[in-house]
Amino acid sequence: MISAQEFIARQDRLLAQCQPNSVCIVPAAGLVTRSRDTEYTFRQDSDFWYLTGFEEPDAWLILSNHPRYGESYRAMVVQEKDKSAEIWHGKRLGAEAALSRFSLDEAFETHELEEALLASIQGQDNVYFTLGYNQSHDRLFTEALNTLREAPKESLAPCAVHDLRPQLHEMRLFKSACEVAMMKAAGEISARAHKRAMQFASPGCFEYQLEAEIHHEFAMAGARSPAYSTIVGSGDNACILHYTQNSAQVNDGDLILIDAGAEYQGYAADITRTFPANGKFSHAQREIYSVVLKALKKRIGYVSARCHAF
Amino acid sequence: MISAQEFIARQDRLLAQCQPNSVCIVPAAGLVTRSRDTEYTFRQDSDFWYLTGFEEPDAWLILSNHPRYGESYRAMVVQEKDKSAEIWHGKRLGAEAALSRFSLDEAFETHELEEALLASIQGQDNVYFTLGYNQSHDRLFTEALNTLREAPKESLAPCAVHDLRPQLHEMRLFKSACEVAMMKAAGEISARAHKRAMQFASPGCFEYQLEAEIHHEFAMAGARSPAYSTIVGSGDNACILHYTQNSAQVNDGDLILIDAGAEYQGYAADITRTFPANGKFSHAQREIYSVVLKALKKRIGYVSARCHAF
Amino acid sequence: MISAQEFIARQDRLLAQCQPNSVCIVPAAGLVTRSRDTEYTFRQDSDFWYLTGFEEPDAWLILSNHPRYGESYRAMVVQEKDKSAEIWHGKRLGAEAALSRFSLDEAFETHELEEALLASIQGQDNVYFTLGYNQSHDRLFTEALNTLREAPKESLAPCAVHDLRPQLHEMRLFKSACEVAMMKAAGEISARAHKRAMQFASPGCFEYQLEAEIHHEFAMAGARSPAYSTIVGSGDNACILHYTQNSAQVNDGDLILIDAGAEYQGYAADITRTFPANGKFSHAQREIYSVVLKALKKRIGYVSARCHAF
Amino acid sequence: MISAQEFIARQDRLLAQCQPNSVCIVPAAGLVTRSRDTEYTFRQDSDFWYLTGFEEPDAWLILSNHPRYGESYRAMVVQEKDKSAEIWHGKRLGAEAALSRFSLDEAFETHELEEALLASIQGQDNVYFTLGYNQSHDRLFTEALNTLREAPKESLAPCAVHDLRPQLHEMRLFKSACEVAMMKAAGEISARAHKRAMQFASPGCFEYQLEAEIHHEFAMAGARSPAYSTIVGSGDNACILHYTQNSAQVNDGDLILIDAGAEYQGYAADITRTFPANGKFSHAQREIYSVVLKALKKRIGYVSARCHAF
Repeated sequence: MISAQEFIARQDRLLAQCQPNSVCIVPAAGLVTRSRDTEYTFRQDSDFWYLTGFEEPDAWLILSNHPRYGESYRAMVVQEKDKSAEIWHGKRLGAEAALSRFSLDEAFETHELEEALLASIQGQDNVYFTLGYNQSHDRLFTEALNTLREAPKESLAPCAVHDLRPQLHEMRLFKSACEVAMMKAAGEISARAHKRAMQFASPGCFEYQLEAEIHHEFAMAGARSPAYSTIVGSGDNACILHYTQNSAQVNDGDLILIDAGAEYQGYAADITRTFPANGKFSHAQREIYSVVLKALKKRIGYVSARCHAF
Repeated sequence: MISAQEFIARQDRLLAQCQPNSVCIVPAAGLVTRSRDTEYTFRQDSDFWYLTGFEEPDAWLILSNHPRYGESYRAMVVQEKDKSAEIWHGKRLGAEAALSRFSLDEAFETHELEEALLASIQGQDNVYFTLGYNQSHDRLFTEALNTLREAPKESLAPCAVHDLRPQLHEMRLFKSACEVAMMKAAGEISARAHKRAMQFASPGCFEYQLEAEIHHEFAMAGARSPAYSTIVGSGDNACILHYTQNSAQVNDGDLILIDAGAEYQGYAADITRTFPANGKFSHAQREIYSVVLKALKKRIGYVSARCHAF
Repeated sequence: MISAQEFIARQDRLLAQCQPNSVCIVPAAGLVTRSRDTEYTFRQDSDFWYLTGFEEPDAWLILSNHPRYGESYRAMVVQEKDKSAEIWHGKRLGAEAALSRFSLDEAFETHELEEALLASIQGQDNVYFTLGYNQSHDRLFTEALNTLREAPKESLAPCAVHDLRPQLHEMRLFKSACEVAMMKAAGEISARAHKRAMQFASPGCFEYQLEAEIHHEFAMAGARSPAYSTIVGSGDNACILHYTQNSAQVNDGDLILIDAGAEYQGYAADITRTFPANGKFSHAQREIYSVVLKALKKRIGYVSARCHAF
Repeated sequence: MISAQEFIARQDRLLAQCQPNSVCIVPAAGLVTRSRDTEYTFRQDSDFWYLTGFEEPDAWLILSNHPRYGESYRAMVVQEKDKSAEIWHGKRLGAEAALSRFSLDEAFETHELEEALLASIQGQDNVYFTLGYNQSHDRLFTEALNTLREAPKESLAPCAVHDLRPQLHEMRLFKSACEVAMMKAAGEISARAHKRAMQFASPGCFEYQLEAEIHHEFAMAGARSPAYSTIVGSGDNACILHYTQNSAQVNDGDLILIDAGAEYQGYAADITRTFPANGKFSHAQREIYSVVLKALKKRIGYVSARCHAF
């Protein structure tokens, strides 16, 4: 688990890279309908997660380095406490608890979103925001801009909108010890799952059963979703790069390609392996496999010699 | 598996309930982004699936009873064959193969969508369409309407837009033998999964592990997704109706509520059971459980006496 | 001026042509920005004007023949009374005065629009609405539909959306005595304006000056806007069908084509005439003019013999 | 008339104030529907007009100081030549003629807009654009951004979007000799129009007739539209700040307030005067008028002493 301090440190590092008189606006993800009144399992936005570790949908993080706030400003808009909604859909943190959990200067509820955006943007020179990523976020944002522009003192609307991602994604490339630990966990879970699928595999089984083995291994370890749609392709299906139907029955003599990785605490593993369904490579299969393996090992050696990251 | 004939029969039954000179327009679901360049597992739209059994995204079914087509008209817009896209994302049926698989009068590719909509709507009195369900479908549809209205002969635009769902959803209430078989399969898979979770459960396990057991049982039987987000709530969590976090550790003495059902070939089971984590009800737990069970049995008896459906 | 009774009679005639259990929803036009904070002269929506004679923007007329209302239902949503807005932009009728002026069963203010739409649509079988005409009206309307569909009793959302215009525009073809009087007035104003432009025209004048003469004649008679963009084309410009630049200087020997009509109380005249800038047709001009005039007269004779409308 | 050189100089001055590696994107205005198939008189966007003097709708100006273009880059997207459209709606300049008239490096036609935007934005660090001003422009722009971001080399999308207006509107504050001349012309036309309305006014005339006198004076001088909706308020109406109904009959003893200014070549006059309808102030009217006049004169003296602009 990432500590509260680490999240604060990330926010501060981001803010330090912004131009003076800037506000960063980072919306969380929302729930996505799967069918009628059912939704896909919620997946938090990666950037929002990286900066907050907050697991609720529809929140907004607001950061500013404007001198009017003193050293810095940290605010969040979160779903309001609501007895009926919480009995139906689960507990919410609420604004009051968010204040202390995230060391905020201010906390707002969803119905105050427009006002909070307006107040935080007003008088800034720069806004950092992922314009173009989500239409309804864009609309809220440009409406706030327009409201400020139409106000008597036009100059109160910021003049520059910067993409938040170049700085933030550069930051995300350099992993903390805690992140490395979680990436390792994701890798280990995924490796176990691949081995289990290999052991399970045999001619006659179905691709989706190999997927089931893998996902079960992931989920038992707390990785409830794969990091990406699991690919289990036998025979010809192994030649479709993102084959995710996983519906065919495995034949004797088939190679099986599995591309699967666990998502653990928001961190992804990504492992692809190819193996014979019946446990033995044919001569031709072995030869091709060996060529690819040799190339891979050479490449890894080449990288290791030049890279001291971990 | 539903036969091709059954899908055709459903389409004909739907069309027979439409007013004369009508066209039905039924769009498939599209892919939904989960994070950056990864997507949730595709879920076909239930109505589109009921009428076609076609598993691809972004298709459109067009049916008409207008006399100009003779007895009836059946068309589909499908993703175009595209070598590169198919190597990346999997094979597509294509327009030509769709023609015979679905006994269509015409088959179009996605880039012909606007034209196909326009041609099929023109001169009709009624359109059956799920207005308001999907903004981009609505836009395509109203643009087609406006194009016809602005054309020299204004009268060629249909004057009534009917909701497709009342008729279609009424039809879907009456299950064929084949559907009943799949519902039974969904129910049996789900019952097995619940039993497996009960056997696995013990103080100290995590809610998400019970979920993992259930989903594995589903997936091994070909039900790759649950019909709705699985609820595993222990202790207090059992009182949140749609608790889907499933993150807590189970305590000795807890009751565990599991609400989970498999989605098999598009058909859903829906089972909720409550049981003691340590295998034994406490006295108070047993009393409440018995009251609820008694009420349930009485209700089932009441229903059975009046209902001869299955 | 159309009487209040005539408007009511029109509404009743429209409602009588709707299917049972129907509601008609007719939005007024809104203000349109010309540049920054200035707007074009407000033009009411023709259909809304025909049914109400109400000159304010952003109103909605709601009519229903549902038996729950007794004989019929008549409501309007209007801009709220607002001291500051009225000092800035002019007086508003307000909901209370609208009640009696338009013999309404209910009157609402703009901030009640969503509720009023919802309440009036709920439980109806049919809605008559000009879907596809205005994006923000469409959004309000489909949001109301979706709210009703998601409500516990799904059946409360109407299943058919009819285009209001076929019936309404058929009604508008048959003019009352009062309408004929206003059309005559529009025609007479326009004829005077054409004559004045002919008298003013001479080589060296500018096309826009002829437009100025025409618009002045219109406006002095209370027709503050032309019914359509006035066309004054001299020389080659006369061959551009909708030439509205009107920027050229008139040459000796030019023919001048003027296509201009006054809009009087919402009723349009439409007159086109061609004449020589210097007062005398050349031989060739006269010949062509005579051929066209002869054709016109023959056609008018043909029409008069078969038509007894006025 | 502003010379072609002056427009080029303005573009260069704007570009010189942009950060390095920048592109400016300035869309023209579009046509606006008044009723069904008729449109309001076209009004060019002020910023686009200031930079180009181009009178056609739906054009885009693209400027860049990116070193890849050498010294600077100047491009325009214009409506394509189209025989049928030009016979109906008037001549279009077309891409070829635009090249030389505006000294462009490249000229594109409307159907190339997406490509031209994409090509010009790609690889830039900054875009100057009036985000939030027009929804369909915003959509085109963010779609171009997203296309670049999703392209293999993500870094090719610019990271900052600046509001074009602060720089441009500061530039527009300092008027050239040619602009001053046009402002003087607008002022003189407007002054003549006010005098004419005063002479025409008498008890019994209608407010809209005074408006007609004013607009005629404007239009005869080539100012086809007022710079803003003309206000003619008599009696109580004079107390509504933006009274534009202008429908009342003038009473004996009324004061009449007229607020009207011509728009000449895109430059606005803005004059307000109050006078007695019957030619003579009452005692009370005169006293108030004198107080206001005295305050005005004092203020003008105060400004003149400190300001040497003209």
